Amino acid sequence: MNQQQLFEQIKLKRSFLCVGLDTDILKIPKHLLNDPDPVFSFNKEIIDATAEFSVAYKPNLAFYESLGWQGWQSLEKTVNHVREKYPDIFLIADAKRGDIGNTSNLYARAFFEKLDFDAVTVAPYMGEDSVKPFIAYPKKWVVLLALTSNKGASDFQFLKDEKSGDQLFESVLKTSQTWGTTENMMYVVGATKAEKLKEIREIIPNHFLLIPGIGAQGGNLQEVALNGLNSRCGLLVNSSRGIIYVSEYVDFAEKAGEAAKEVQQEMEKLLMGANLI
Amino acid sequence: MNQQQLFEQIKLKRSFLCVGLDTDILKIPKHLLNDPDPVFSFNKEIIDATAEFSVAYKPNLAFYESLGWQGWQSLEKTVNHVREKYPDIFLIADAKRGDIGNTSNLYARAFFEKLDFDAVTVAPYMGEDSVKPFIAYPKKWVVLLALTSNKGASDFQFLKDEKSGDQLFESVLKTSQTWGTTENMMYVVGATKAEKLKEIREIIPNHFLLIPGIGAQGGNLQEVALNGLNSRCGLLVNSSRGIIYVSEYVDFAEKAGEAAKEVQQEMEKLLMGANLI
Repeated sequence: MNQQQLFEQIKLKRSFLCVGLDTDILKIPKHLLNDPDPVFSFNKEIIDATAEFSVAYKPNLAFYESLGWQGWQSLEKTVNHVREKYPDIFLIADAKRGDIGNTSNLYARAFFEKLDFDAVTVAPYMGEDSVKPFIAYPKKWVVLLALTSNKGASDFQFLKDEKSGDQLFESVLKTSQTWGTTENMMYVVGATKAEKLKEIREIIPNHFLLIPGIGAQGGNLQEVALNGLNSRCGLLVNSSRGIIYVSEYVDFAEKAGEAAKEVQQEMEKLLMGANLI
Repeated sequence: MNQQQLFEQIKLKRSFLCVGLDTDILKIPKHLLNDPDPVFSFNKEIIDATAEFSVAYKPNLAFYESLGWQGWQSLEKTVNHVREKYPDIFLIADAKRGDIGNTSNLYARAFFEKLDFDAVTVAPYMGEDSVKPFIAYPKKWVVLLALTSNKGASDFQFLKDEKSGDQLFESVLKTSQTWGTTENMMYVVGATKAEKLKEIREIIPNHFLLIPGIGAQGGNLQEVALNGLNSRCGLLVNSSRGIIYVSEYVDFAEKAGEAAKEVQQEMEKLLMGANLI
């Protein structure tokens, strides 16, 4: 999927919502545990109830790996379900990978060939050759960690480079622009640092940003939109727990759909306010 | 496994060799491809032929994930084989993970509970809460990326912090020391930067270092030993392609054993030279 196609989906659904499929076997409704693959059953129902209101899904790999190879099997089924039923959905593997060139190439093979994801989140610590193998795939994307939303973000991401005066996350934004384009790179920017968004938009006005954590991680949607929207929307805002775990009973999917719809309606207003739809 | 137990194994085997199980289905001997699980068959034979000369094994997750859930199944069998037959081997999941606290906790569950690894390599970009869930497990280890051996290492790892004057990899070494101890943290230090080892040893004299890439990535074993050995050895030196892909024929395991023995014999001399055995 290219940037224009993603923007078309955003306009069509009047939403820039990404639903985080952080599916924890310990948190899903008990009645699903008798299914042959409870994680997939959960995901399938969540997706079917929210696809109308979402342009992207983002399974976090940790949740699947905590179940070993069976978890990877649930993930594969989830990806295939989306691909068969909703071919225009943007699928992000939230894997935070990154290794030396040859090895990153195998991660790319895992997420872009073995599984048909559109994008993978990648950690920038190992630099250019750890990122490039992913964007060597046509129409596939890297979502590079820039400024994360967790407490530990401040350990290294704000260190100020003596020479350029840039903080580490700014160096990541600037340096990585020479690796790819607005058509194959996005950035993770923690919503809890919305005051930083303006600053970030000055460095990368035209890239898409993946904003984690409206809801549980404490970001504010209006503030994010105000500082983050660009001429092609340029935002995917993720919500996970606030949508997928609203109810722990048989109505969980229905409730998830309602929660997604609520977010979509707010996003619609913001898109209209910015004259994007 | 604690540090003293690892050192005992090093003294017993007169070796600080870690064998990298970077098992690529495209590179293993053709006659194995008829086996029900060629990757596991390869690993099993390699391990059985080299266990006498090695204290650690390090499967890199990318190679397994490139085969999807079947690859994770091969990995699980490999780990179980080591655990059943060689309980004193130190097993490192070279996964380069790292996520917000709750999510890193699930990665820890994946590698320490679902699979019985001793250690996981972790990327430092997201800071303290991305690392701590791993070391919360008793007798389990984090191997934190400090200075990697790839070209892209220079993109960010050498950026110099304005305030402390430390390069990023030095900040990682210093800051992370408050997160864990010499009993649950090791560091990845690229062997191609052996001149940096001395400097690194001044910051962390007592931690174990995992040195990738003698052989293919161009490190020099003598130089690494000279600058890196401490009173409990303090080094695990990894070799992958130089051991596991020496032969592509039916004698591949035998040849791998010979290659591992050669490295072990050199390591024995170095351990004796340092009065450690």
